[in-house]
Amino acid sequence: MNTKLRMGMIGGGKGSFIGAVHRIAANMDGLIELCCCALSSKPDIALESGKALFLPEERIYSGYEEMIEKESQLPEEKRMHFVSIVTPNHVHFKPAMMALERGFHVVIDKPIAFSLDEAKHLKQKVEETGLMLCLTHTYTGYPMVKQARKLVADGVFGQIRKIWVEYPQGWLSRLSEKDGNTQAEWRTDPAKSGKAGAMGDIGTHAANLAEYISGQKISKVCADINIVVPGRMLDDDGAALLKFDKGASGVLIASQVASGVENALTIKIHGEKGGIEWHQMEPNTLLVKWYDQPAQIYRTGNGYLDDVAKRNTRTPGGHPEGYLEAFANIYRNFAWALEAKLNGTEPREIDFPTVDDGVRGMAFIETVIASGQSDKKWLDFEI
Amino acid sequence: MNTKLRMGMIGGGKGSFIGAVHRIAANMDGLIELCCCALSSKPDIALESGKALFLPEERIYSGYEEMIEKESQLPEEKRMHFVSIVTPNHVHFKPAMMALERGFHVVIDKPIAFSLDEAKHLKQKVEETGLMLCLTHTYTGYPMVKQARKLVADGVFGQIRKIWVEYPQGWLSRLSEKDGNTQAEWRTDPAKSGKAGAMGDIGTHAANLAEYISGQKISKVCADINIVVPGRMLDDDGAALLKFDKGASGVLIASQVASGVENALTIKIHGEKGGIEWHQMEPNTLLVKWYDQPAQIYRTGNGYLDDVAKRNTRTPGGHPEGYLEAFANIYRNFAWALEAKLNGTEPREIDFPTVDDGVRGMAFIETVIASGQSDKKWLDFEI
Amino acid sequence: MNTKLRMGMIGGGKGSFIGAVHRIAANMDGLIELCCCALSSKPDIALESGKALFLPEERIYSGYEEMIEKESQLPEEKRMHFVSIVTPNHVHFKPAMMALERGFHVVIDKPIAFSLDEAKHLKQKVEETGLMLCLTHTYTGYPMVKQARKLVADGVFGQIRKIWVEYPQGWLSRLSEKDGNTQAEWRTDPAKSGKAGAMGDIGTHAANLAEYISGQKISKVCADINIVVPGRMLDDDGAALLKFDKGASGVLIASQVASGVENALTIKIHGEKGGIEWHQMEPNTLLVKWYDQPAQIYRTGNGYLDDVAKRNTRTPGGHPEGYLEAFANIYRNFAWALEAKLNGTEPREIDFPTVDDGVRGMAFIETVIASGQSDKKWLDFEI
Amino acid sequence: MNTKLRMGMIGGGKGSFIGAVHRIAANMDGLIELCCCALSSKPDIALESGKALFLPEERIYSGYEEMIEKESQLPEEKRMHFVSIVTPNHVHFKPAMMALERGFHVVIDKPIAFSLDEAKHLKQKVEETGLMLCLTHTYTGYPMVKQARKLVADGVFGQIRKIWVEYPQGWLSRLSEKDGNTQAEWRTDPAKSGKAGAMGDIGTHAANLAEYISGQKISKVCADINIVVPGRMLDDDGAALLKFDKGASGVLIASQVASGVENALTIKIHGEKGGIEWHQMEPNTLLVKWYDQPAQIYRTGNGYLDDVAKRNTRTPGGHPEGYLEAFANIYRNFAWALEAKLNGTEPREIDFPTVDDGVRGMAFIETVIASGQSDKKWLDFEI
Repeated sequence: MNTKLRMGMIGGGKGSFIGAVHRIAANMDGLIELCCCALSSKPDIALESGKALFLPEERIYSGYEEMIEKESQLPEEKRMHFVSIVTPNHVHFKPAMMALERGFHVVIDKPIAFSLDEAKHLKQKVEETGLMLCLTHTYTGYPMVKQARKLVADGVFGQIRKIWVEYPQGWLSRLSEKDGNTQAEWRTDPAKSGKAGAMGDIGTHAANLAEYISGQKISKVCADINIVVPGRMLDDDGAALLKFDKGASGVLIASQVASGVENALTIKIHGEKGGIEWHQMEPNTLLVKWYDQPAQIYRTGNGYLDDVAKRNTRTPGGHPEGYLEAFANIYRNFAWALEAKLNGTEPREIDFPTVDDGVRGMAFIETVIASGQSDKKWLDFEI
Repeated sequence: MNTKLRMGMIGGGKGSFIGAVHRIAANMDGLIELCCCALSSKPDIALESGKALFLPEERIYSGYEEMIEKESQLPEEKRMHFVSIVTPNHVHFKPAMMALERGFHVVIDKPIAFSLDEAKHLKQKVEETGLMLCLTHTYTGYPMVKQARKLVADGVFGQIRKIWVEYPQGWLSRLSEKDGNTQAEWRTDPAKSGKAGAMGDIGTHAANLAEYISGQKISKVCADINIVVPGRMLDDDGAALLKFDKGASGVLIASQVASGVENALTIKIHGEKGGIEWHQMEPNTLLVKWYDQPAQIYRTGNGYLDDVAKRNTRTPGGHPEGYLEAFANIYRNFAWALEAKLNGTEPREIDFPTVDDGVRGMAFIETVIASGQSDKKWLDFEI
Repeated sequence: MNTKLRMGMIGGGKGSFIGAVHRIAANMDGLIELCCCALSSKPDIALESGKALFLPEERIYSGYEEMIEKESQLPEEKRMHFVSIVTPNHVHFKPAMMALERGFHVVIDKPIAFSLDEAKHLKQKVEETGLMLCLTHTYTGYPMVKQARKLVADGVFGQIRKIWVEYPQGWLSRLSEKDGNTQAEWRTDPAKSGKAGAMGDIGTHAANLAEYISGQKISKVCADINIVVPGRMLDDDGAALLKFDKGASGVLIASQVASGVENALTIKIHGEKGGIEWHQMEPNTLLVKWYDQPAQIYRTGNGYLDDVAKRNTRTPGGHPEGYLEAFANIYRNFAWALEAKLNGTEPREIDFPTVDDGVRGMAFIETVIASGQSDKKWLDFEI
Repeated sequence: MNTKLRMGMIGGGKGSFIGAVHRIAANMDGLIELCCCALSSKPDIALESGKALFLPEERIYSGYEEMIEKESQLPEEKRMHFVSIVTPNHVHFKPAMMALERGFHVVIDKPIAFSLDEAKHLKQKVEETGLMLCLTHTYTGYPMVKQARKLVADGVFGQIRKIWVEYPQGWLSRLSEKDGNTQAEWRTDPAKSGKAGAMGDIGTHAANLAEYISGQKISKVCADINIVVPGRMLDDDGAALLKFDKGASGVLIASQVASGVENALTIKIHGEKGGIEWHQMEPNTLLVKWYDQPAQIYRTGNGYLDDVAKRNTRTPGGHPEGYLEAFANIYRNFAWALEAKLNGTEPREIDFPTVDDGVRGMAFIETVIASGQSDKKWLDFEI
């Protein structure tokens, strides 16, 4: 293939946070071009937003149905290869299903859907069609996260025993959804977000990260789920004791009322011989700890790292990478895999979250919320 | 009073970790002199250890009974003012009771006793006798901890909502108690430590610190208690979801199998308007966070601190203080209070842990262990 | 204007570090498209590299002369708007002059040229033509650097007294230029780099950053310039005592033999009332220190920042940005200014380094090298 | 010897900073007892201060002459073993000489004297008498500093090339000496401090630390010495380019006008293969960097450290030690050496600063101040 991959974006018009992030991530490596969009359900905003992105008017659609429909009628060398769905949770399932049905690959923001049931249907459709679905669990895109996963998988720490993951934010410390904050509005609205607030928005990231690095799956959950800010409709805070399938135990904290905290996702994993510690807010550093030797500071971009970390880095050591690069890694890895699929060649990298992560994420939401409502100590994590 | 306070030490002979710490702490400010000791239940070690401390042979006793007995017969201006009990947990209660009965004040290492029942008896005896009992919950001795408590009490963060405390260590990642490590031996032995291992040794510190800074008391507990290292007899790891009496919720983690971690007690507390973060391993820094303003770095020894922090600091800003100074604050505050009591004057400082903290600590141990064994989600924290 | 700006790239073919960085930076915001290139002086590499970027063969040129010549003959709506010159230093001047003469705007990697004399000619040409020249002094693109500059300019620290800037790297700790490292080869070769090695490559960044934040210009220099690794042809290490025009004094350190250091550009500036500290390797944090109040942690992406910091940020607080975003800010600010110039409107942002920074950078190189060779203590910084 | 060593203190009465520090340091390990004092030249303060330390009135002297005279007449088993001199610089030489002449060992705060000439006389007297003189260059007392020195001496970094040491403070950012600050008064007064202000007070620490860790001696100096705060009589700021005798070069910064900085002594040393970085304000961490491997975090109190670090530590890993423990190491090492000398046995530890460090410190002051006044670039460091 000697052209860029063509992306159509659904959602992400003016005022969206995550839409702009997706576009930057897709742009970064020059592998993908935005070719069409349905950026808003409001036609004038859809048009204005599309023009600001230099798209030709004929490919600025007023809704995802129109976009998928019309694009599917374009000649193959012109029509989009995949859609990127960056709408609120309640508008994930339908455009994703429609895109898959018309033969388009899908990138979708997390959580994958509004309910576990939707997620399972998506998985079924992906399997039926053989198309690719990429879920943007950003934090697994960081090179130091991949390095951590590799060290654990290589067994350098022995059997993993403890997995502690915390994801505190402070931005919902006030009732901002009544104060004109559009991000707060939909994320705290059960009709748009689903069963969970904080646990869906950031708890799923924490759970995904814990499983990604540790190579263990959550098997039991005992959760305390809270609405801390009076008047809020969904959980803005919670914590869960966890058991994992290969014997580790741990704790997951997710809170959006940690006033004064930005986005402090942190994970600590310990095995018999040592462990790792990683902080999303200083993502280029991975602390590697040892039972009886000095801890080591692994840093992005250095020659001593594993290949998987190197392949997911753009700059040499000391030239810090960040959130957008991690996001771009997911797009780039998806692009490389899609390119290979289209060309019938070996992909250079296949490490990106898929529909399976999406299904586990929805199951996590359902389990953790059910546990929060239960008097029973442990609930099984079931899909 | 124009003499130093005289201390008799019980336990803390050769090979003891905490005995040496107590002596350094008591020495530091020149207010206390070690006048007699019963450092070991083995007479030769007791003698050798006492001589190494330059004590005259006639006041190197071969057991605490002898020491308390003989000291009580000495003239008032010569005999010890208080005992310092630094033995393993199962040898706390008897010497403390005997000392109180003979009119000696008591300093005692935490946890205060072997069981909640013993602790309650000690409390009763303290109240009966009007004598002072000081419990060395070291971490409340740090100036930045006192500053944090003051900020919370002053209400600068509004209502406190979240209390997260974690106390990971890695030194019991292996079965060291079978390997000649004397610290490990008694701390993992139910006959010497009591019902709990990690939860008694360090979990009590974490719980005490959480209550000390937040001004809230734990009211409900939901715990996961583990023996991680095969062959161990007491918990070496655990975590608990917590509810507090004034509305906060939180998580407490205590683990001695966090391989590669030294002594990383950390606390984060958040209210509506901001919060604090403190790390014991870098204790001179207190992060103070705000909902919509830059976080601040409070540092030991600076003019902007509250008086209570200043009174518990010996050096100017940038001349780091540590664990021994925090420990010495507890001794010094106890010494100032005892001096005032003996002189009938106002104490300069009364901020040190007492028998009440001891009772709560034992109740914490009993509750958290019971919760770990229960299928019920929440157990009430009762004394 | 309702199209992207069109960029032609000179240099930056396979194996180039900085070429890829320029492309990512230009791509990031979707304002610029790469329309043509002359990526290498070797025709086959030029072709292969251009095709890998999905450029049509007719616009993959075999040299910059051809590119500038042919592009200038294309119709206005098709031809490039500006060139981006990412070649080694000795190939900056000619393509830049040629581009300016043919009416193309210029982006150029630092240092601007091979000699101060070349730099002055470029400045003259820019002034003659009225075209724009943007110099990619990356580190001034960081939002926290802009915030620091704003705080200083606002006078919150009072008169600035001390400026300490250090830029250590370790990658030239060995004689890598004899070992096949192409980056090392040209950067240590006087025929390609110019009079200076480390002082040109990174010393100029440090000097530029110091002047940018402090608002003061270096007026006197006393330098110690070293070739540390035997066999090297240009300085790989140096330090200079500095005097500034508005009364500050300071120190600049630049070294490429700080073995084990990645890219640790750090600046500390102090005035009467406080100061700032910034570390490039953790660029989203700006320490703001006060004479008698707790230091503050300013963080990228927060509401309390100045507008200039906010305009140069893409993500909310806690979603770390890095080197590529800083680089992209320079491209984006240049793009916004160029767009405004082409449209005859007000630019949204004009804060990017220009030919004046380029001239000062070359003067810095010449002064600091002359000082290193002089027995006189202070040399005047003259242009 | 089966008694504590007896110390007589000269200076350090009410209001003194360093006197209290010396007493705590001497107390800490129970090896030394304060037996007499001449704490102030004002008799009432001398008496009051002595009584507050529980000293008997007959050994609270009104001046050092009286103290040395009368103590020398006491029986050997009662009289002091050594004096500790903690007066301002201009009152170092006379009491030290008198003590040595009367057969007393000496501990003395740095800088050793008022002038290089005085220092040389002290050295001569020490050599004549065979008595011990210990200089309290605190920072060499830290275990991680000793670990760093050992790593360098072991050659693990190869040939040392770069030595950068900085010692910024902010406490003299204002003209506090006119504002009742007694510390500021004498330290900025040439009649009491000597030729240098900041360079004597903290520059000597920095120079001593650089030489201690690197094992190299400063051989050439090129200094910029400033009085930044108008009205001040001695330098409050300076920097020097340095050459060392075994080939390293470097920079030393010492400033007391770094507004908002506490006591941020920092040293970075690099050899061919790696290097170290140490920050006094977080002294239990030593960064050990490697050319092509992850950096390591050496931490006080761990089993992997060298014996010299272990011998100078009192607590296990993660129980932070600080400034007072470092200071106490100097006293303890002196005490151990003195005890061995008195007993005719092998000392357990001889690592403490001596009169030789004192002479080099005074030579540093004279050289750096002379360089500051010279137009010549480099001055030789001569004694």
